[in-house]
Amino acid sequence: MNPVNPVILSQYMSMTSGALVECVPNFSEGRRPEIVQQIAYSITAVKSACVLDTHIDPDHNRSVITFVAPPETVVEAAVNAVRRASELIDMRTHQGEHPRLGATDVLPFVPVRGVTMDDCVRIAHEAGAIIARDLSIPVYFYERAALRDDRVNLEDVRRGATNLDYAPDVGATHIHESAGAIVVGARPFLIAFNVILRTDDIAVARQIARTIRARNGGLPFVKALGFRLHTRSLVQVSMNLVNYEVTGMSAAYDAIRREATRLGVEVEGTEIVGLVPQDAVGPSLALPASKILEHQIRLCQSV
Amino acid sequence: MNPVNPVILSQYMSMTSGALVECVPNFSEGRRPEIVQQIAYSITAVKSACVLDTHIDPDHNRSVITFVAPPETVVEAAVNAVRRASELIDMRTHQGEHPRLGATDVLPFVPVRGVTMDDCVRIAHEAGAIIARDLSIPVYFYERAALRDDRVNLEDVRRGATNLDYAPDVGATHIHESAGAIVVGARPFLIAFNVILRTDDIAVARQIARTIRARNGGLPFVKALGFRLHTRSLVQVSMNLVNYEVTGMSAAYDAIRREATRLGVEVEGTEIVGLVPQDAVGPSLALPASKILEHQIRLCQSV
Repeated sequence: MNPVNPVILSQYMSMTSGALVECVPNFSEGRRPEIVQQIAYSITAVKSACVLDTHIDPDHNRSVITFVAPPETVVEAAVNAVRRASELIDMRTHQGEHPRLGATDVLPFVPVRGVTMDDCVRIAHEAGAIIARDLSIPVYFYERAALRDDRVNLEDVRRGATNLDYAPDVGATHIHESAGAIVVGARPFLIAFNVILRTDDIAVARQIARTIRARNGGLPFVKALGFRLHTRSLVQVSMNLVNYEVTGMSAAYDAIRREATRLGVEVEGTEIVGLVPQDAVGPSLALPASKILEHQIRLCQSV
Repeated sequence: MNPVNPVILSQYMSMTSGALVECVPNFSEGRRPEIVQQIAYSITAVKSACVLDTHIDPDHNRSVITFVAPPETVVEAAVNAVRRASELIDMRTHQGEHPRLGATDVLPFVPVRGVTMDDCVRIAHEAGAIIARDLSIPVYFYERAALRDDRVNLEDVRRGATNLDYAPDVGATHIHESAGAIVVGARPFLIAFNVILRTDDIAVARQIARTIRARNGGLPFVKALGFRLHTRSLVQVSMNLVNYEVTGMSAAYDAIRREATRLGVEVEGTEIVGLVPQDAVGPSLALPASKILEHQIRLCQSV
């Protein structure tokens, strides 16, 4: 074994000690990986930004890029991505079952280390203002960055935006011809976790989603929807675990499997969109290192 | 239809008229996509560089990144990638059937537009000198950048390097502990085209490769090797079409299918590694736009 090299160790320390914001934009494109890649490259063009994960979903025709950057440059990287998406994605031709408002559909900022939620709210407001001004895309602020009580929940913003008179928080009052609108916010870390069911009956997925989600009295801090997976003749319960310390992946999985069994349906498999923090992985859950947030951050040289 | 906007048109012209070098590094990692992605991001950190394609092959445990950049910045982007690969890939633990010398195994530069082959030779020599000096990786020059007649062919360099006394063209005479050695060169555009056979008998792939390749009197300008595909119990004839105007994909495919049929074996499918130029795509060959060089260059905003 080699002795620890103090020079290399100090480089490692500086790499892992700076303040860091996570940003998890969702894009309305999941069938042309080359488009999603070009958006990712617009992020990594900001040298201090590091893309940790790219999840491309042809079923939902939707993608999620997970990246981190210092608070000083995260807005530049995020706006780069929104600009590139507005150039490469046209909502007039986009098709997909997942609810969405724009080419970049949601743009949440998440404190990872050395930054507060208030910092992320300021970052979200700055990003939104630039997007509205420079890209002419109307911006709604949600979650902790919401400016109105009735826009805290993403679902409420989506529902409101079906109304043509629903004024944005900043930017033009008419949606961008090709890029639509965008929902920008700040929120704590969440785990996007899907359970796939061995049936093509969408009613089963929707019923299970209603049973297990917090809104209908199910598991606390669980949001859930049922979707069809068009490429596979299966359905999916798609979840956001918004406080995984209270309801984690195992509890959510167990609840879904129990309900599925009751309805005579088997679980086909599971899927994590993006990354999970190390402390959300219990002994009963084996994940590849590439799905662990801290491992992916260690791979970065730039942050 | 909208009238052509002269401002946008002039932007498009400037985007597509600059001098451009293609670089196609091959890396000894094909089972951890997150590693290959981090290498790609070290390239896109150079703003004027654009990654056009990333081919990750778990069977060969090998990846190929295709990128373009102006001649002024292509060396910086290439050295970034070689440095990042030397940090993330350890040849002491790498396993794979494909012959390889290092973490970045080959690094060819290819003239695309507005640059000559001589320019690419100078670029290869500059990149090699920096890699040898800054990264302490021994460098062999091949193809048009070769400094010795017996190192023009990649296969000859590989064979020579099995000899411990085989001195590199620049750099340390001992291989880098973790990153191995690298072969840097300049060459014309080639098409990497594989045909997969419905058998697990490697002797069949090797015999077909010998029959059809130029070296053994087969198709002109075709290099071919037979490989096992470990994840699929199939075999593959892996080809480089080094002058696709003389022998293109259709001719290569037809020759392989004919030999396979003679040996009682069916063709399972085909695979293109990287991109092909528009003029190599004939009427009998339907390819997605994402495999066409010119289409992928048009996606770039930076070059």
